[in-house]
Parts: sequence; C-alpha cells; structure tokens
Amino acid sequence: MRSTLKPSYLIGTATLIAGTALVTGLGARSAGSADRTWNLASELRGGRAKNVILFIGDGMGDSEITIARNYQLGARGRLTMDRLPFTGEYTTFALQESNPALVDYVTDSAASGTGWATGHKTSNGRISTVAGTTAVSPIPTILELAQRAGYKVGNVTTAELTDATPAVLDSHINNRGCQGPADMGSCPAYKKEVGGPGSLAEQAVDHRVDVLLGGGRDRFAQTITGGPFAGKTVIQAAEALGYDVVGDKTALAATTANKVLGLFNPGNMTLEWTGAQAAPFPGSGPQQCVENQRELLSNEPSLADMTTKAIELLTDDGWLRRGHKGFFLQVEGASIDKQDHVESPCQQIGETIAFDNAIKVAINFARRNPDTLIVVTADHGHTSQIVPVPSASESVPRPGNLSTLLTKEGALMGVNYGTRAHLQSQDHTGTQVRIAAQGPQAANVVGVTDQTDLFHTLARALGLE
Amino acid sequence: MRSTLKPSYLIGTATLIAGTALVTGLGARSAGSADRTWNLASELRGGRAKNVILFIGDGMGDSEITIARNYQLGARGRLTMDRLPFTGEYTTFALQESNPALVDYVTDSAASGTGWATGHKTSNGRISTVAGTTAVSPIPTILELAQRAGYKVGNVTTAELTDATPAVLDSHINNRGCQGPADMGSCPAYKKEVGGPGSLAEQAVDHRVDVLLGGGRDRFAQTITGGPFAGKTVIQAAEALGYDVVGDKTALAATTANKVLGLFNPGNMTLEWTGAQAAPFPGSGPQQCVENQRELLSNEPSLADMTTKAIELLTDDGWLRRGHKGFFLQVEGASIDKQDHVESPCQQIGETIAFDNAIKVAINFARRNPDTLIVVTADHGHTSQIVPVPSASESVPRPGNLSTLLTKEGALMGVNYGTRAHLQSQDHTGTQVRIAAQGPQAANVVGVTDQTDLFHTLARALGLE
Repeated sequence: MRSTLKPSYLIGTATLIAGTALVTGLGARSAGSADRTWNLASELRGGRAKNVILFIGDGMGDSEITIARNYQLGARGRLTMDRLPFTGEYTTFALQESNPALVDYVTDSAASGTGWATGHKTSNGRISTVAGTTAVSPIPTILELAQRAGYKVGNVTTAELTDATPAVLDSHINNRGCQGPADMGSCPAYKKEVGGPGSLAEQAVDHRVDVLLGGGRDRFAQTITGGPFAGKTVIQAAEALGYDVVGDKTALAATTANKVLGLFNPGNMTLEWTGAQAAPFPGSGPQQCVENQRELLSNEPSLADMTTKAIELLTDDGWLRRGHKGFFLQVEGASIDKQDHVESPCQQIGETIAFDNAIKVAINFARRNPDTLIVVTADHGHTSQIVPVPSASESVPRPGNLSTLLTKEGALMGVNYGTRAHLQSQDHTGTQVRIAAQGPQAANVVGVTDQTDLFHTLARALGLE
Repeated sequence: MRSTLKPSYLIGTATLIAGTALVTGLGARSAGSADRTWNLASELRGGRAKNVILFIGDGMGDSEITIARNYQLGARGRLTMDRLPFTGEYTTFALQESNPALVDYVTDSAASGTGWATGHKTSNGRISTVAGTTAVSPIPTILELAQRAGYKVGNVTTAELTDATPAVLDSHINNRGCQGPADMGSCPAYKKEVGGPGSLAEQAVDHRVDVLLGGGRDRFAQTITGGPFAGKTVIQAAEALGYDVVGDKTALAATTANKVLGLFNPGNMTLEWTGAQAAPFPGSGPQQCVENQRELLSNEPSLADMTTKAIELLTDDGWLRRGHKGFFLQVEGASIDKQDHVESPCQQIGETIAFDNAIKVAINFARRNPDTLIVVTADHGHTSQIVPVPSASESVPRPGNLSTLLTKEGALMGVNYGTRAHLQSQDHTGTQVRIAAQGPQAANVVGVTDQTDLFHTLARALGLE
C-alpha cells in the first residue's frame, strides 16, 4: 500500500511561497530564505516505493561535500545532492572483532556497508557476516531480500566490483581482501573447494545480480578452484550463467542483455580529474584541477553513464510494464575515499562531482517515476578539512599535508590532510555523516539515525518488512 | 497568524508506529528503524512563534558532536540535541575584507554570527557591520528588530559577553577585539568620544538587553571615555540604566529584576571538565575525563542554570500574561570552540555536554509553551577528528596532536588535532555544519541552507518579515 499526502489539506493553513530570490537590503537572499514548511510537507510520503536507488559517496563526509561544492560551484552554489528534500545525519561506528560487545569508533567501508545492507553492525573488514565468528555466517542483505521478493537488482561502482561497498550487497565473507578465487588466503572456510560460497567475485556472479558495473576485471579473470565452474575464470562462469560481459563504454551502450557484467578496468576505474597531491607545509599549489582525464585516457563510462544504463537495463525489457516489481540499485562513488586516503584534493573533488552527476540521472528518472526512493549518503567521514589558506611566511609550520586550490569562483581554498604523515594512507574518521533522501519513506533519514536504520528504511520502502 | 497541521488528516493514510524498540534477528533495532514519516508530519508547523531560543555551539561541527556523544553516552546514545525533529546542514563561509566580492572559505565567529544575526555576510572579525568599509556601518540584528517589535530579549554565553557570538546580536563594530572602553585601538570611528556607539560592552548595556549572562567582568569594569557615562565603568553605567548586576550563582538565583547583567567571571567562565591536553604522537592518554570542575572551583552558574534563569526572567513578570509578545534568547556554548583550539578533548566534551543540558531546559520549556521555536546549530566546524586509536608501535609517527579517551561505554576513542602544531591555536574548518530545530518554522532548517537563511527563519517566526 502506497499512501501520499494530498496537497489539499494544506489549503488555508499557510501561504506557499515560491523559491524565487527576493532582493532585500544589502544583498540577494538565497532560496533557503523563504518559508519552506509546506514545500517539505508536500514531499512527505510514507508507504512503498516501486524502486530504490541508494547512492553511497565513499568517505564523503560533510567536509568532502563542502570542498567539492566550494571548488566547482562556489560557496553559494548547490550540488544536486544538496537539493534532496529530507536530510539528517547518521552514525557510522563498527564493532570490535575480538570483542563485539565493544564499539570501534572508526569504521571501514566493509563494516559500514554491512550496516545498511543487513541492518546489523559488524567489525571492520567483514562483508555481511557476523563479528567474532570463524564459521561461515552470512547475514541476509537488502539486495538478496529484494531479489527474492521479485525485484530486479543492480550494483554499480567506480571501484572494483569486489571492493567492500558493492560486495556487502551481494556477498558474505569474513575478510574483505578475499576478492577473487586467488585471493582466498584469509578466508579458508569460504573457499569453494571446502563447500563455501567462494570469493567476492564468484558470489556476485552466483547471485545473478541483474546489473553489475564497475572495475576489477583482474579479480574476475582469476580461475575458480572448486564447485561446478572449477577450472574456469569467473568471467567464463558469468557467461555460462547468461551474463553479457562488457569491457568498455561502447559495449555497455550497445548491450540489451537481461544480465550484464561490466568490467571496465583491471582495477579501480580511471579518475575523472587530476592535480597535485597535498604536500608538507606550506603545501602544494595554488592549483586549478585538470579535468576530463577519464575521457582522454580511457574508453570507460562515467558513473552517470553507468547509472543511466543500469536504470535502462533494470526497466526497459517490459519488466515494469508486465506488472512486475521494480528494482533496487546501489551506486557507489568509490574514489572520493581513495583519493582522500592519498591526499589528492583535485582527484577527490572530481570524483565527488562525478558522483553528483550520477545522482542527477536518478533525480531525472524519479521525475517520471515518483514512486522511487532515492537516498544519498556516505559510509564514513574522512580526513580532508577546509582550513585557512597556508602561507610560507607563517612562523610555525603546520603539521598536516596541505594544498591550496584556486576555486572556479576565483578564491583560494586551503585543504588539509592531517591524520597521517605524507605518503601514508590518511585515515577514515568517526564523525556522523550526512544522509539525504526523496520519495516514499524519505522522511526517515531526518534527525540522527544509524546506518543500520537505513536498512529498515529501504526494506520498508520495498515492502520487505 | 499561527497555523498548525491538525493530526486529523493523517488518519487513514498510514499507521503510526511508536518508537519502541523491536527485537529482530541478531539485535535490537534503534528507535530510528521504525517509520517516522507521520511523526515528522505531526511536527510540521509554519506560522509564528511567540518565543525563539537559538542555541549556538561554538565550533560544534558534526565531528565535535560525535566525539561528545561517543564519550558520554556511547556511539548508540542520543544527546538531547539529537532528538530535535528537523535537521539539515548550513554553509558557514565569510567574505574577504579586502575584496568582499570574494569568499573566505573559513569563517570566524564574528562573520559567522553576523550571518544569522543580520542575514548578511561579512568579513572575519566584524561584528554586524559591512565588510570593506571604514565608516560606522551597522546592519540591523534579529535581537534589535525583535526588541523594537516588543519582544523581550536575552543573551547568554559561557564566554565573555563581549565575545563575538553574543556581540553580533547587540553590537556593531569593525573589529571584534574592541570589547571594552580600553580596548578601542582598532576601532577609532566607534569610540564614544568621537560620537561612536562605543565598545562591545558599552553597546550591550546601551541596548538595554533584558538579560545578559556570561563572563567578561573585566571588560565591563573598564572606564567609559565619552558620552553621558564618561568616567564611569560600564558596570556603573549599567546600574544607572536600571540593571541588577549580579556576580555569582547565588545572586543570579536571587534576582527578580527586569534587567539583569550577570558577570560571573573576569574572563571566560570556568570549564566544566578537565583532562590532559592532546600531545604529539602517540598522544596523551588513555584517559578518562575529570568532571565537576566548575562546581568545585567556582560559584558560577552552569549554562543550564543561566538558561533556566534567563527564561524565567524573560517570562515571569506577567509580561506574557499581560498579552505582550514573547522573547528572543540566544544561548552560546562558547568553550567547545575554545577548547578545540587548545587541543583539549575532555574540556571540549564537557562543554558540549553542558551545552546539551542547556538545550534540555529549553525543550522542557517548549513542552509547556509549544509556540516556541528552538534552533540548535554551530557557527563553524573545527579541528578535532575521531581517528583510529594510536599505538606507539606504529612504524610511522602521525603528524597531528592526539589523545586517546576511555569512553563511558568502555571503548577507546582516538581524537586528532591536526591543523596546527602542538600548542599553536588549532584552526576553524570550513565544513558545512548541522542545524536542527523544533517548533514553528523549524522545517526551514532541513536541506542545505546558509547561515544568512537562519536570520530569515527567525525573523519570519517572530513576525518581523
């Protein structure tokens, strides 16, 4: 049962004020200065969604969002993700593997993703399995539950498809490193030859996820060591299971198969932008970022391209017309995190903007399909901070790794990476992060929730609980 | 005109699910796991508020909130501020004094406060005046507009009353350092002897703000150099203007005056907690914080005490009963910021918890007075980050200043201060920060807004625009 608030009840209670800018006194007001109470009311919808699209900006804390906005659109600009009507923060902690009764205040992407994928906390490194166990201990995921209930399912990322964030949806394993059949050293109980479900690559394919798009081809090129496909590569197994395996943007555009496995890079996908890495005080720059790297260096699709195609594949075969249920799709902007780890502000910003462009695709789809729940959030905070512009004339050197960017509105922005020494991997942080949504059940992201609550919001929207 | 959504329209559209925890599968669900769509609908209120209480956690970004929650209540705990029904983020940038057409991505408390106090951006260091000007250039503030419209007004802080965040409401000056009559070197045009409005201390009193509670007694003990009170101290001028000037918790509890100036400390008020400062790698700790310092070391009121008394003074003289308008009150938790600057996690957490306790006072008042808009936000982000627990055995030393805390739930939490060298003042950061609200117009904090939008939300709630 889907229910929507009728706008009729609003008549007479308040004047709806359009979002046009009013000029007053010393400057123009922003769109946020008009009363939006009833605009928000008109967005309130409970009930069920036909489709759910979950966007995960890996490592995209509030600081990372602000850095990208400032650079690309100016401090007064607004990203697509900024325009979602319902907003809140959620907590991101993990459990300790050695004692799951205790919290680990800084999560990795595996424990974090397990939270929204299953509704249960686990320890860092685990993919939808129970903390502190040695046996095979899968926890059912939202993708599995949706698939069983008749929804089509898709999984899109700019990382390897076997990286933690995509993996939490379609796989279960005790160690996130066990990505391909040749990577199983830390996951003996999960090996196929002992009756286990196999590596993350094998599980993704065995799950028959309708659309799998991302990087990680080398994992899928490894040879399976047990079970019915022993001796074949995971790609060959996928083909035997009916997948069209595509390797570049051109092939992706051409395919109309029911099951598509897109492997566009041997590892993580090519970055959108490049620029100087941060450096010890006074840091790199001032610099402007160099754009359009993916197009110049590769024939890989953008995250927006993949999102467009995934939605097309999940809807265009008459599935919806024939009265079936809709789809569940996760889209990850993975390299926001990876470029924050390596102190590279331009690359980090380029990936954030590409992620935002993918969200635009979903918002446009939802215009024609309002029974679509869209959620945009992160899996954890990260290191990068906006700080006063560093100057070599400061008397005391700063400890962090810095870069100064000349933003497109013409101002200088200082960015600091201060959790680890230069050329070490900068740390995730334990801060609560933003979550935003539109569509049925979207109001449930408002306030302070936890990542495990998102599982229930998604499951409720799909009628799975 | 105040209008409230009647719950009647909700009947039949969805099932209201109470916030009780449901046990499922591997663990208990949090309150956030039930559908809250219609709970949010029932909180939606446009129209006017009789009273507005604005809480500013200085430097209280999402990271600082999470650090305090983790330490005091555990990662699964919820602060009072977490429970406000409407949440969003707002942007916090300033303008450049030398060229106000350009943005400064890291604001101080003066420019930031000017944003919500007046609805206009300014440059760092300015108190509700126009960036890039040398002449006296006051911009009307929400407190001034409310006072003129017949509201009682109050200003409460744990800092000096002449510090930037309280000052933006009741003063105008080109340099935040001009706090008392003897501090006017950088503000020649504002001196009383040249016909200016005088220092921040003088302006606060001359504004006849009904309730002024905080620190900064030494500023008010300085001698006025021009105008009708030349030769008197600001305290003497206040008494001449009808203020009851009180100096400790006991005197505050006893006063029933119409105008109260509480000056509880020569400088900033005594901190609630103490503990070890952060230190270079591997940092201080593991430590547990030492509490109850204010009670042990002083006879100063807590921020909750001051909030309770301010509300009492602003309401208990029959003002409301006699049909007058309500009040506007700002309450600042000032030393969250100040202790983040000096890398002191326990002090920072203690001030955050004290701030949260003051919010509880307002929520209780609003239970009996639902026509009260309560807004809780910060003026800017700050340095402290939750990081993996440092260990001396790590092969590469970390660059930041660290402390490990043993939280009350028994886990270790690493906190990093990495924007400045040890014993230097850690930096504000430019991240968007959380804003939360309840009551009339509260829904306007949802989404991404700017600090200047908050001015309009407050003004609209008070019927001032």
